[in-house]
Amino acid sequence: MKLIEFRSILRKKKIDLVWLSSPDPNITYFTQQAFDPAILLVTQRSAVVYVSALDKAKPIKGVTIRHFKLGWQKKISHNRAISLGVNKDKLTVATYEGLKKLFPKARFVDISKDVTVLRTTKTSAEINKIAKACTITDNAFSSFVKKFNRRKFKTEQDVALFLEDSIKSQGGGVGFPTIVAMGKNAAVPHHKVSLTPLKRGFLLMDFGASYKNYNADMTRMVFLGKPTKAEREMYGLLLKAQESAIETASKGVTYGELDSVSRKILGKYDKQFTHALGHGIGIDVHESPRVGGGSKEKIERGHVFTIEPGVYFPGKYGLRIEDTLVFDGKTKILTKSSKKLISL
Amino acid sequence: MKLIEFRSILRKKKIDLVWLSSPDPNITYFTQQAFDPAILLVTQRSAVVYVSALDKAKPIKGVTIRHFKLGWQKKISHNRAISLGVNKDKLTVATYEGLKKLFPKARFVDISKDVTVLRTTKTSAEINKIAKACTITDNAFSSFVKKFNRRKFKTEQDVALFLEDSIKSQGGGVGFPTIVAMGKNAAVPHHKVSLTPLKRGFLLMDFGASYKNYNADMTRMVFLGKPTKAEREMYGLLLKAQESAIETASKGVTYGELDSVSRKILGKYDKQFTHALGHGIGIDVHESPRVGGGSKEKIERGHVFTIEPGVYFPGKYGLRIEDTLVFDGKTKILTKSSKKLISL
Repeated sequence: MKLIEFRSILRKKKIDLVWLSSPDPNITYFTQQAFDPAILLVTQRSAVVYVSALDKAKPIKGVTIRHFKLGWQKKISHNRAISLGVNKDKLTVATYEGLKKLFPKARFVDISKDVTVLRTTKTSAEINKIAKACTITDNAFSSFVKKFNRRKFKTEQDVALFLEDSIKSQGGGVGFPTIVAMGKNAAVPHHKVSLTPLKRGFLLMDFGASYKNYNADMTRMVFLGKPTKAEREMYGLLLKAQESAIETASKGVTYGELDSVSRKILGKYDKQFTHALGHGIGIDVHESPRVGGGSKEKIERGHVFTIEPGVYFPGKYGLRIEDTLVFDGKTKILTKSSKKLISL
Repeated sequence: MKLIEFRSILRKKKIDLVWLSSPDPNITYFTQQAFDPAILLVTQRSAVVYVSALDKAKPIKGVTIRHFKLGWQKKISHNRAISLGVNKDKLTVATYEGLKKLFPKARFVDISKDVTVLRTTKTSAEINKIAKACTITDNAFSSFVKKFNRRKFKTEQDVALFLEDSIKSQGGGVGFPTIVAMGKNAAVPHHKVSLTPLKRGFLLMDFGASYKNYNADMTRMVFLGKPTKAEREMYGLLLKAQESAIETASKGVTYGELDSVSRKILGKYDKQFTHALGHGIGIDVHESPRVGGGSKEKIERGHVFTIEPGVYFPGKYGLRIEDTLVFDGKTKILTKSSKKLISL
């Protein structure tokens, strides 16, 4: 993606060579394939990716594929005073010190911000992949709702397995560790799926498919049994906080403002909302833009992000509702599963 | 694990403070929990791990748990000329530069080799976790053999889903991306699971469970249909290459020698064996010791490693057989699934 744009940045900044070492999601970004290990070299005119001969690489537009072979580094190494771009957010100190030996006269330049800026604004090809990941995620959820019964689904784990299997059978991958949290477990935002039995109460599912290296992220709640009025009201309040933030999302509005909108609606329960409103999403599940309190970043065409307010009552229960959205002139919800509270 | 031993290294090397930032498997090693994000600080007398309040951390012997809070870094930062240990294999350049500001007078020392040495020799508690991961892996394979039928298992993907579900239903995690490769797909050692239909021929399964952050790794072949004499013979030759390396594994023998033993038995097919004989395994699926050609590392008590020779005939087929082993005075195979070629 945007290799041409990246090269024009290199020309502008007079960077001769960029070295990216795995693990670095920017290699996946520019090659649109996941390799491990890999080294991507980009100059103002060309790009080469070194991969293991044990991997099978598909042809990449604008990128030559080579295999690691004895002495491959020496062939690249040289003694000129080049300007060498690296991603300091991912490059390890050990590799950095190795590069200083391979390119003893190089001046190192951090290109992490430049790639972040490119990646923050998605192309339509990227948006299509994320949309497909969202559809797979929606299908998994609706299939769960359709197939749910108390004999088949006994624990959080059973629900997680069902969702993940559904994702995989549609050709997707599991984008990140699935969270399924029953009752008070949902009061821990990053709860790990357990063998906790399903019982009466809110059941939280925070999960997402990946498709061709791009991710979806969605959280839905269902209620096992019949919610009390207080439970319905708390869910309704949170849903209003989530939907109001989505409605507010339009060109030029800052992500910090969206966070404020949700918190204002939560009122006294704002204290229970202990994390950021959301996050950018793409090749990484959490990436730019920053969607949270104080973020001065403005919504722009091509941004893909999530909105996920939550309220947590430790030892009692927790609620979260999350969608993946794209702004392409207007804000569109990519995860289309109903947010009406269902009793199962 | 071995936090006390690590502290005595710090005293010996006069290192005042070690800073480990996630992602770094050494944090998992010392805390025996998987956190993201996390910062682990170890001094000669104490240890503190900073984790997100969104995670639920269990108490850790010898390690104080704290939550990231605004300004937490400033509290640690100071201006003395300390010796500061970091893991250069994992520390990013961005964090490294941040540390130089937090500790402007510190002298940085790379502790990556010291932790690698500790981790290479497993404690019995670690070996028990790996053994449990291997048992889960064995159970998944035997369950596959028992349940296999052509109506239920149509593609590589169906097999992979079955194995992974079996692992998860036993309380394990999937240690690494499962490889299921039908026929010529197995000639690509790192083949990615696809919708390729199952048909007559060799079916390769390279997979493993994780259990409490420790991994198993096993490769088994089955034959769908009836193999020809040539196919049986090739499998028999590879099995002999694998078993001979295992039989050779004893105290003081180098891993390079094991590699030679396998290659000698493969004879002219040595050219088809295009990767290392195996790898150490533990918290990382690939870790120390190095098990391959030229490795001068000697087998020692507490080493856990795999032996996985393979032969690959591009466009035709590929074979690989792999076990996870421990040396505790003698070499024991932890993955106990039969290696007799089964026809399904």
